[in-house]
Amino acid sequence: MTEVAPSPPKDRLLTSGAHLMAERGFDGVSVREICADAGTSNNMVHHYFGTKQGLLDAIVDEFSTEVFAIPMRLMDKEPRSKEEFLSIIELLFETTLEAFIEHRSVMMVVVREQADPAALPQYMKHVAAFLEQAKARGYVRGEVDTDMITGFFLDRILNQVQFAPWIQRVYGTDLLSDPGYRQQWCESNLDVLLNGIAS
Amino acid sequence: MTEVAPSPPKDRLLTSGAHLMAERGFDGVSVREICADAGTSNNMVHHYFGTKQGLLDAIVDEFSTEVFAIPMRLMDKEPRSKEEFLSIIELLFETTLEAFIEHRSVMMVVVREQADPAALPQYMKHVAAFLEQAKARGYVRGEVDTDMITGFFLDRILNQVQFAPWIQRVYGTDLLSDPGYRQQWCESNLDVLLNGIAS
Repeated sequence: MTEVAPSPPKDRLLTSGAHLMAERGFDGVSVREICADAGTSNNMVHHYFGTKQGLLDAIVDEFSTEVFAIPMRLMDKEPRSKEEFLSIIELLFETTLEAFIEHRSVMMVVVREQADPAALPQYMKHVAAFLEQAKARGYVRGEVDTDMITGFFLDRILNQVQFAPWIQRVYGTDLLSDPGYRQQWCESNLDVLLNGIAS
Repeated sequence: MTEVAPSPPKDRLLTSGAHLMAERGFDGVSVREICADAGTSNNMVHHYFGTKQGLLDAIVDEFSTEVFAIPMRLMDKEPRSKEEFLSIIELLFETTLEAFIEHRSVMMVVVREQADPAALPQYMKHVAAFLEQAKARGYVRGEVDTDMITGFFLDRILNQVQFAPWIQRVYGTDLLSDPGYRQQWCESNLDVLLNGIAS
């Protein structure tokens, strides 16, 4: 058996910081508690991030990169057919959902502190531009307000991931750990988003 | 000039409780502070609600009634045409948005404490049944998963109202106090929800 190397103290501080701040809020947790949870000495937050605020900023930056910057690359390619356009939209929705699930603690901190992930406005602009381009090619209805669409995406995903424990308690469905339900949830949502509810 | 009678202490406690808990969380505020903010003596939370938890329950109940029970009545009437169905959906969306804006502090408490408003599952069932009925009459596409639609409604509205200060800071639009933007926002969202984005 080979030993797994422990993750570096900086990463452990990011993980512990996100976890504790998601639970108790920025003001509800001390630097000392974060260091204890991460198994580092008490001056490590100071060493890597300067202050507790610096650690929060680093957590928000991580969210920015992982959740917005990476899915954005999916839109780099210009779709050549309506089918290709639709599959990019599907992939974008699913990838964003996966990223929110994977970085759930970090997301909870961003929501709780109403932080400004730097990449979010870029992501929103990028999606709007991608949809405008698709509209010019006739893949998107002319009436669609393309600035609104990221809202539909992110609101659905954010709330489903944020309220997952509540949804499971009340409805019994488990988006976080049931891949079958996750697949069905994506399909139903994409169907409504792409085709609307009216006959 | 006639004098306006001050609101009863029970209402003032509900308002102050919602306001302070929305800002600092249930654990971040004391009964004494709530009474001071409401201008009542220190035993009034005990008198009307038993405990701080009792006050929170009353705040959540208020949200339940005002935000879910009242808009639900719109669906009591069975629509006789697709046009009538569409205008009920529009009215339901707009009424729910208005209720969330009017009760924003209470809503923030419900979200922050992940409380269970009793009327929410009823509201969700009611909307799903209303849409199933409309599907049987041919007003709703057969493929629509009607259980998902309340999610679209509430996620859009909840996040737009919850993050209104952030949205205003980043995008300059003000849903809470600009009726023109609110109207445009409703129209764009209903267009996507009813007709989808694909051409």
